[in-house]
Amino acid sequence: MADYKAPLRDIRFVRDEIFDFNTLYTKINGGEDATPDMVDAILDEIGRFAEQEIAPTNVTGDREGCKLGEDGVIAPSGFKEVYQKFVEGGWPSLSADPEFGGQGLPVSLGMTVSEIVGQANWSWGMYPGLSHGAKHLLEAHGSTEQKDTFLPRMVSGEWTGTMCLTEPHCGSDLGLLRTKAEANADGSYSITGTKIFISAGDHDMADNIIHLVLARVPGSPAGTKGISIFVVPKNNLDDSGNVAERNAVSCGALEHKMGIHGNATCVMNFDGAKGFLIGEQNKGLSYMFTMMNSARIGTAFQGLAHSELAIQHATEYARDRLQMRSLSGKKNPDGPADPIIVHPDVRRMLLTIKSLTEGMRMMGYHMAYNADIVSDGKDEEERKVADDLLSILTPIGKAFMTEVGCEAASLGVQVFGGHGYTAEWPAEQNMRDCRISTIYEGTTGIQGLDLLGRKVLGSGGELLKPLTKEIYVFAKENLENETIGGYSVKLQELTKEWGELTMHIGMLAMENPEEVGAASVDYLMYAGYVCMAYYWAQMAKTAAEKLAAGTSETAFYEAKLHTAKFYFARILPRTITLAATMKAPLDTLMDMAEEQFVIS
Amino acid sequence: MADYKAPLRDIRFVRDEIFDFNTLYTKINGGEDATPDMVDAILDEIGRFAEQEIAPTNVTGDREGCKLGEDGVIAPSGFKEVYQKFVEGGWPSLSADPEFGGQGLPVSLGMTVSEIVGQANWSWGMYPGLSHGAKHLLEAHGSTEQKDTFLPRMVSGEWTGTMCLTEPHCGSDLGLLRTKAEANADGSYSITGTKIFISAGDHDMADNIIHLVLARVPGSPAGTKGISIFVVPKNNLDDSGNVAERNAVSCGALEHKMGIHGNATCVMNFDGAKGFLIGEQNKGLSYMFTMMNSARIGTAFQGLAHSELAIQHATEYARDRLQMRSLSGKKNPDGPADPIIVHPDVRRMLLTIKSLTEGMRMMGYHMAYNADIVSDGKDEEERKVADDLLSILTPIGKAFMTEVGCEAASLGVQVFGGHGYTAEWPAEQNMRDCRISTIYEGTTGIQGLDLLGRKVLGSGGELLKPLTKEIYVFAKENLENETIGGYSVKLQELTKEWGELTMHIGMLAMENPEEVGAASVDYLMYAGYVCMAYYWAQMAKTAAEKLAAGTSETAFYEAKLHTAKFYFARILPRTITLAATMKAPLDTLMDMAEEQFVIS
Repeated sequence: MADYKAPLRDIRFVRDEIFDFNTLYTKINGGEDATPDMVDAILDEIGRFAEQEIAPTNVTGDREGCKLGEDGVIAPSGFKEVYQKFVEGGWPSLSADPEFGGQGLPVSLGMTVSEIVGQANWSWGMYPGLSHGAKHLLEAHGSTEQKDTFLPRMVSGEWTGTMCLTEPHCGSDLGLLRTKAEANADGSYSITGTKIFISAGDHDMADNIIHLVLARVPGSPAGTKGISIFVVPKNNLDDSGNVAERNAVSCGALEHKMGIHGNATCVMNFDGAKGFLIGEQNKGLSYMFTMMNSARIGTAFQGLAHSELAIQHATEYARDRLQMRSLSGKKNPDGPADPIIVHPDVRRMLLTIKSLTEGMRMMGYHMAYNADIVSDGKDEEERKVADDLLSILTPIGKAFMTEVGCEAASLGVQVFGGHGYTAEWPAEQNMRDCRISTIYEGTTGIQGLDLLGRKVLGSGGELLKPLTKEIYVFAKENLENETIGGYSVKLQELTKEWGELTMHIGMLAMENPEEVGAASVDYLMYAGYVCMAYYWAQMAKTAAEKLAAGTSETAFYEAKLHTAKFYFARILPRTITLAATMKAPLDTLMDMAEEQFVIS
Repeated sequence: MADYKAPLRDIRFVRDEIFDFNTLYTKINGGEDATPDMVDAILDEIGRFAEQEIAPTNVTGDREGCKLGEDGVIAPSGFKEVYQKFVEGGWPSLSADPEFGGQGLPVSLGMTVSEIVGQANWSWGMYPGLSHGAKHLLEAHGSTEQKDTFLPRMVSGEWTGTMCLTEPHCGSDLGLLRTKAEANADGSYSITGTKIFISAGDHDMADNIIHLVLARVPGSPAGTKGISIFVVPKNNLDDSGNVAERNAVSCGALEHKMGIHGNATCVMNFDGAKGFLIGEQNKGLSYMFTMMNSARIGTAFQGLAHSELAIQHATEYARDRLQMRSLSGKKNPDGPADPIIVHPDVRRMLLTIKSLTEGMRMMGYHMAYNADIVSDGKDEEERKVADDLLSILTPIGKAFMTEVGCEAASLGVQVFGGHGYTAEWPAEQNMRDCRISTIYEGTTGIQGLDLLGRKVLGSGGELLKPLTKEIYVFAKENLENETIGGYSVKLQELTKEWGELTMHIGMLAMENPEEVGAASVDYLMYAGYVCMAYYWAQMAKTAAEKLAAGTSETAFYEAKLHTAKFYFARILPRTITLAATMKAPLDTLMDMAEEQFVIS
């Protein structure tokens, strides 16, 4: 099986031909350095690095896993060496603030780098990936001293960072957390407690690990209002800010899990570890959300990652594997059988993966585009609109992309038949690695509540408008378009129906708030499929224009047209069922008594 | 987490209160021994055996896996001991022919035993399970001498059996197989070749393993018409039929795979192994299909098995795990949070698993009921109708039950949140174990072609009629029923639509046979959901009658009514999308050139 190939052509299509990031970069703060030539060179170089350096560690990292030694966690062979090269290449600092040694390139360019890195080896990519969230939080809420102390070496990648949120008895419900932070005389705090599921919580790839830890100062209010956040380095620092003796924080155990074996999922013990309060006491949860949103966008890209791998692997196999003859006559008459790609059902699976993959890429860059404006836009009104849009796209992207990513990864196994179930081929690892994505950084259920409850209904529908308006305007402008006129009619119908569904659930929710939870996941998935229809209409429009203008890349653009047609005919109709089930009466969920679920 | 609990109450509901197997047993050959008391005792005993003896090997078998030693494969600890007890208990011979030492009890009773055994540990259950197919084939097509030689000890369980079909270059397409069988002077054959994916292909649990091997006699026609089948024992037999020296057959390697680690998936090398032709030369493939149908029904029960485990695990977790408050007010005011089962979306997941599980059980016993009639019915016309029904239900059961079983197992992970991804809880193994079920014994795609192409359209729609008629008649008779009148209206609409869809695709297929492959999987899944609606209507009807008549089991029957309501409102609408996508134009699949699927 051929190795990972960075999908640079499709990334450039989305970046350059659809969203036109190069023009965006001329308009945002700090965008001037991201010239088209520079961007091109960065894409080529990260593609090469991912293919040649990172990807070879993907299978070996899965097989070998992480080990807990006397001095902490040892990452799989090669992880540390590749990470050193990654740091030497300056990749961690790409879109970081120049004040702390960053290169100040746009956020969206960092996301492209992350997309490619994550596809090459998701488990590896999480080590630098999780640092980003920690850096953002420190940047936004840390004191000047804290920033000066920690950020330069986190930005360079010399040190990595983690987010320590979950405890054994609380995941989604952080209000229950118990880790305590007691004030010391010197202004620092002693942190005591146990955190679980800490990704990249410990490893031997960097000289220090900067943990951001949610904890309670004794006497704080109960629940979510009494949570503060602390920076707790693995190794204490001396007066010059260099690594000194170990802090009282250690990995107590590694989780054994279905996949992402190359990433250390740690139980972290804080035994009176020395930490420093970030910002104000009891504001930990709101600070955390500044990090959480970017972590959710990052996880959305995981759905894309495994879907991209699935289409690369499955297509190659389906073209090679000879099995049975086409029902409409031999397609490979000189061979003993036809390649399985001739069979309609194999094509159905491949096109499902393909249409979801490329649709997800559009959704990812739709978020990235707005993230650029939010972060560096020059116009406040524009920033506000982008922020609203991003706040709606984030839960959709996180949950929808990971859900359909898991579907794609599972179909990727199916195309291989029995071989797909064995470790000899990459499909089974890909499916195992993907399965966590619908869970961490907020489950699909949590994203559904965030989207429908907190944001759409919580704003009286206002927050939804920029997105549905964008789709509606695009559709209206393209009703007469030869290629996508039909798609545009469909998009208008769907945006109308989307509004009606929102209204319908909103009315019910005024009577009973449980209606929100009952409809939320179906609502979110519905939103995802409608957005993806919008993306496919955009891609088809551009592809038709390129073909009409004349191009040497006929196959590439024709594939876009075929895939759009497939998506509208065979995937988008899922909205019909979702529109029905999200309106199903609440009592179909709530009438059953708890003890009736299992009677054996 | 509590251990596996055999779902005897629900099995008895389906067996006794819906299908009434006890009455059936009074009418079929050999059914007289299966008195209600006897059946009850068997259910209790296999439940106890599965819970106490088999289930404890499930997790340890996954962790330990199989090992390939000098003398062959060593099954995980405990597997052999439990198997010995299973044999001592007489379980392998339950529904086997008394002529060879079997107890001659009905086929359906053997399926109940298999259902429970498979839920306790699917990997373990495959060792005795695969013997059944080999026994059936020998019974149906072996010579008297072959039967006398092999069957008594296979029936007792002293020896196990395998089916050796797949080769590295051929799975679905057996016409390509290369293993050769050269005639010896003494009437035996020398078998040479490599078989892969041989489940239970080698192990240390029994004294001998009887392989049934597909191979070609030199000079036979190419393709599927030149395949013969041979019986090849692992150990040769002496003149008295006892185990003598090793035959030239050995396990060359074990597959490393996503799940079912406790079952040995073997590469089997035949190096001039001594074998004996079964029946006539070149009829191997048709003989194999007598075994394949029962293997497919067996695999259908795998979907049920993992779904049953998912609902048992997930319900217990959802009732214990405290996380967040109900949106409609505290449900557990004295605790720090409410159990997650109060949240509508958690209920949506649990009810999805529950409705699929119990619906699958109905489908399983619908097959079992007809299998009894086919095997032991006294009336030829009845046998013919049952055979037609079973021939349609088998591909639906195999593919639909395993597809929704995988969905259920994955939702089982999701209910646990991050914990579900770790090996500390049983959900992740359950999902890994389930994933093979949509692949082996004919993939979902193969079942789709078998159902729609070979059977439904191949018979001009005739083979479908017994099933749709059964559903239609039930619906018509219950249009006025207070509980299921509405469901019956829906069932009538669906059987009508099903017919129209069949006609629609049939017409298109006359123009282009590829239309069959394009629609087949959506068609099969549509059929599955309609059948399941029929089953839920039946269950609701019976539950309402029991409640009206007065019962001490109010909770059990009320749960059936609630779950039926859930199914019709939130699962059945999936048919709407499927009806749309199966009619999508063929060109949405076929227009794309092979080289356009991946352009990176």
